[in-house]
Amino acid sequence: MNENNRPVLAVVGATGAVGTVMRDVLSTREDVWGEIRLVASARSAGRRLTVRGEEIEVRELSPEVFDGVDIAMFDVPDEVSAEWAPVAVERGAVVVDNSGAYRMDPDVPLVVPEVNARAVRQRPKGVIANANCTTLSMIVALGALHAEYGLTALRASSYQAASGAGQEGVDTLHDQLNKVAGNRELGTHPGDIRRVVGAELGPFPAPLALNVVPWAGSLKDDGWSSEELKIRNEARKILELPDLRVSATCVRVPVVTTHSVAMHVTFEREVNAVRASEILRDAPGVVLYDDPARGEFPTPADVVGTDPTWVGRVRRDLDDPRALELFVCGDNLRKGAALNTAQIAELVAAELSA
Amino acid sequence: MNENNRPVLAVVGATGAVGTVMRDVLSTREDVWGEIRLVASARSAGRRLTVRGEEIEVRELSPEVFDGVDIAMFDVPDEVSAEWAPVAVERGAVVVDNSGAYRMDPDVPLVVPEVNARAVRQRPKGVIANANCTTLSMIVALGALHAEYGLTALRASSYQAASGAGQEGVDTLHDQLNKVAGNRELGTHPGDIRRVVGAELGPFPAPLALNVVPWAGSLKDDGWSSEELKIRNEARKILELPDLRVSATCVRVPVVTTHSVAMHVTFEREVNAVRASEILRDAPGVVLYDDPARGEFPTPADVVGTDPTWVGRVRRDLDDPRALELFVCGDNLRKGAALNTAQIAELVAAELSA
Ligand SMILES: NC(=O)c1ccc[n+]([C@@H]2O[C@H](COP(=O)([O-])OP(=O)(O)OC[C@H]3O[C@@H](n4cnc5c(N)ncnc54)[C@H](OP(=O)(O)O)[C@@H]3O)[C@@H](O)[C@H]2O)c1
Ligand SMILES: NC(=O)c1ccc[n+]([C@@H]2O[C@H](COP(=O)([O-])OP(=O)(O)OC[C@H]3O[C@@H](n4cnc5c(N)ncnc54)[C@H](OP(=O)(O)O)[C@@H]3O)[C@@H](O)[C@H]2O)c1
Repeated sequence: MNENNRPVLAVVGATGAVGTVMRDVLSTREDVWGEIRLVASARSAGRRLTVRGEEIEVRELSPEVFDGVDIAMFDVPDEVSAEWAPVAVERGAVVVDNSGAYRMDPDVPLVVPEVNARAVRQRPKGVIANANCTTLSMIVALGALHAEYGLTALRASSYQAASGAGQEGVDTLHDQLNKVAGNRELGTHPGDIRRVVGAELGPFPAPLALNVVPWAGSLKDDGWSSEELKIRNEARKILELPDLRVSATCVRVPVVTTHSVAMHVTFEREVNAVRASEILRDAPGVVLYDDPARGEFPTPADVVGTDPTWVGRVRRDLDDPRALELFVCGDNLRKGAALNTAQIAELVAAELSA
Repeated sequence: MNENNRPVLAVVGATGAVGTVMRDVLSTREDVWGEIRLVASARSAGRRLTVRGEEIEVRELSPEVFDGVDIAMFDVPDEVSAEWAPVAVERGAVVVDNSGAYRMDPDVPLVVPEVNARAVRQRPKGVIANANCTTLSMIVALGALHAEYGLTALRASSYQAASGAGQEGVDTLHDQLNKVAGNRELGTHPGDIRRVVGAELGPFPAPLALNVVPWAGSLKDDGWSSEELKIRNEARKILELPDLRVSATCVRVPVVTTHSVAMHVTFEREVNAVRASEILRDAPGVVLYDDPARGEFPTPADVVGTDPTWVGRVRRDLDDPRALELFVCGDNLRKGAALNTAQIAELVAAELSA
C-alpha cells in the first residue's frame, strides 16, 4: 500500500494489445491506485509508456518487480502467467490473470463482476482469472437472461476480431488490407486472395482480409478448437451450470477489434422478446440497441472502444417458445480483457483497503 | 428450338452480378443451347457482351425478345420478374427465375437439382424458381444429411458476402476498402470507420469494411429480416418439411463473394461425425474439406469461383447425440444463383429436347 492507503498495482504485459488498452482503462476509470508499475519482457524494458498522464519506464519481468505490489495484473501469454503468477503471489500480490493458464483451475475463481462478483473472495491460490474474450463478449447479457429464465442451452457462432490474436493479429490484418485494397478483381477467383496476401498470415491459418476463417486457437479432441471449448467450459463455470449444453463455432473475421456473437439460447421457462429486451436494457453493463426499423443493431464499428456489451436482434424463436435468438458485440480488448480485469482488480482493491 | 433441336435461351439481367457469372457458367458447362439472347434494361441495350466466346448485343427487355425462346432465365430484381415472367411464359418460354418473386408460390416449384430435381416437372405456371443464395449455400449438404438422418431443426448463422447485394454491393465494399486501407489507427475508436467511410453505404445499412453487419433484406414481423425468413421458408419447401424448426441470424461480412454458414443441425436419429463426413464426401455437389490439423477448412477465399458446396468443421454436439455442428461455404453467384439456375435450365432443356 502507498502511504495514502492506496494499493500498488503492477501491469505485466503493459506493451501488448491488452496492456495498451489497460493503460487507457486505468487512465480513464476512477483512480483507486497508488503506484502503478509497468512490466514486460527484456525486449521492451526501458521503453517509456504513459498511464494516468504519467510517463513510466517499463521494467523487465523479475521477482523483484513484485516487491511491495498489492495487485498484479497479468496480460501475457499463458506460459508466462503459469510461470510468473506464483512468483508474484509469493511476493505478496493478488494476481488477476488474463491468460488461459488458470481459468479452469478449480482453486481459481473465474470472475465477471456483473455476474459472479462474490466469487472473487474464494481465491485459495491468490490468483483470480479473467475469462476468455469471446466468453466475455456475451456472458453479461447471458447472465442477466439466466437470472430470469434459467439457461439450458447455448448455440453460439462467433465473428471474432483480429486483435483477439494480439497485436500481431492487428498488424497482420492491416498489412493484408494494404495489399488487397484497390484491386477490384480480387475475391472472384479461387486462390487470388492467397496469392496477393502471400505467405504472411501472422497468427491466422488463412488470409483474413476479404475472408472469414472458421478457426481460432488450437486443435482439441473430435475437431473442436480450443476457443470453442473455452466458451463452453468458461460459461459453465461462471454461471455455475456444470451441465449447461453449449456448442460454439468460432470464426475469425476481418475486423480490428470487437467480437460479435450470434446466439440461440434456450431456457427452462417460456420467454417473450419484449420482456427479455427489458431485462437486457436494465442489466448493468449491457446496452440494448435493437430497432432494425431505424437501422439500430450493434456492429463492431460502433461498439469498439466502448465498455458495455451491446445487444440487438432480440427475437423469440418462431418454433420454440423457450428460445431466443440474439446478436451481441463487445470490445474484446475492453470488456473482453482489460476492463474486466480492471473491474476485478478494483473489487480486490476495495477489499484490501477496507 | 434451333434447327439442330437445341433450345433457344434468353438471359434476362445479363449485365448484373448474377448475369455476369451466368455468362461465364454458360461458357464453361457442356453446351446444350441453340441461340442465346442477352437481355437487360434500356440502360444496357446495345452493349456487346461475350458468352460462349461470341460477342452478343444486349437487347432491351420487351415482349418480342421472348419470341422463339424456349427457356428464359430471369436474373433481375423481384418486381421485374413479377411483371415480365408471365410475358415470357405467354410467348411460349419456360421461366427459371432467380428473384424472390415466385419462390413461395405454391404453384411454382423451388428446385435444387441435387435435392429435388423431380419437382421441376410440376410447373403449372410455366415458372420454376431458384432458391435464395444463402439457402443454396447450405441446402445441398443439408439435403444429403437429411436423407440419412431425418432433419428436425436447423440453427444457422450466416457470414454473407457483399455480392449477395448485387454489383452495387461489390462496388461499395471495394470503395470502402480503399478508404480504410493504410490507416492503422482505424477500428479502435467508436465511429472512426463511419467517419472515414462517409455516407456512401450502398445497399448496406452500416459500413461493411472492417465491420460485420447483422442485417440483410427488409424488416418483417417480430424483428426478423426477410433474409432470415427466406432461409426458413425455402429450406422447408425444398426439403418438403413444412414443420422443420429453423432459426437463422443473417450477417453481412466484408467478403466479396461466397457465403458461409455456421450450422447447428438436429436429426431424428443419432449421428456420428465419421459417418456424417462420409455422407457429405460422397454427396453430389459437395466437397468435404475438413482436416483442421492440416489447416483444412473451407474459407470464402478458397471457395469463390468454384461450383460445389464446401463443408468443414464437422463435429458432433458434445451434449446431444442427435446434433451436428458444421461450417459450409458456397459461391453465392455460382451455386447460390447462376449455376443452380443453369442446372435447372438444363433439366428443362433435356425434357424439351427429348
Ligand atoms: N487480445 C485479446 O482479445 C485478449 C482477450 C482476453 C485475454 N487475452 C489474453 O491476454 C494475454 C495478452 O494478450 P495480448 O493480446 O495483449 O498479446 P500481445 O499483444 O502479444 O502482448 C503480449 C504481452 O506479453 C508480454 N510478454 C510476452 N512474453 C513475455 C515474457 N516472457 N516476459 C514478460 N512479458 C512478456 C509482451 O511484452 P513485450 O512487448 O516485451 O514482448 C506483451 O506486453 C494473453 O494471454 C491472451 O490470451 C487476450
Ligand atoms: N447476388 C446474389 O448473390 C443473388 C443470388 C441469388 C439470387 N439473386 C437474385 O438475382 C437477381 C439479380 O441479382 P444481382 O445480384 O445480379 O443484381 P444486380 O447486380 O443489381 O443486376 C440486376 C440486373 O437486372 C437488370 N435490370 C434491372 N432492372 C431492369 C428492368 N427494369 N428491365 C430489365 N432489366 C433490368 C439489370 O440490367 P441493367 O444493367 O440494364 O441495369 C441487371 O442486369 C435479384 O432478384 C437477386 O435477388 C441474387
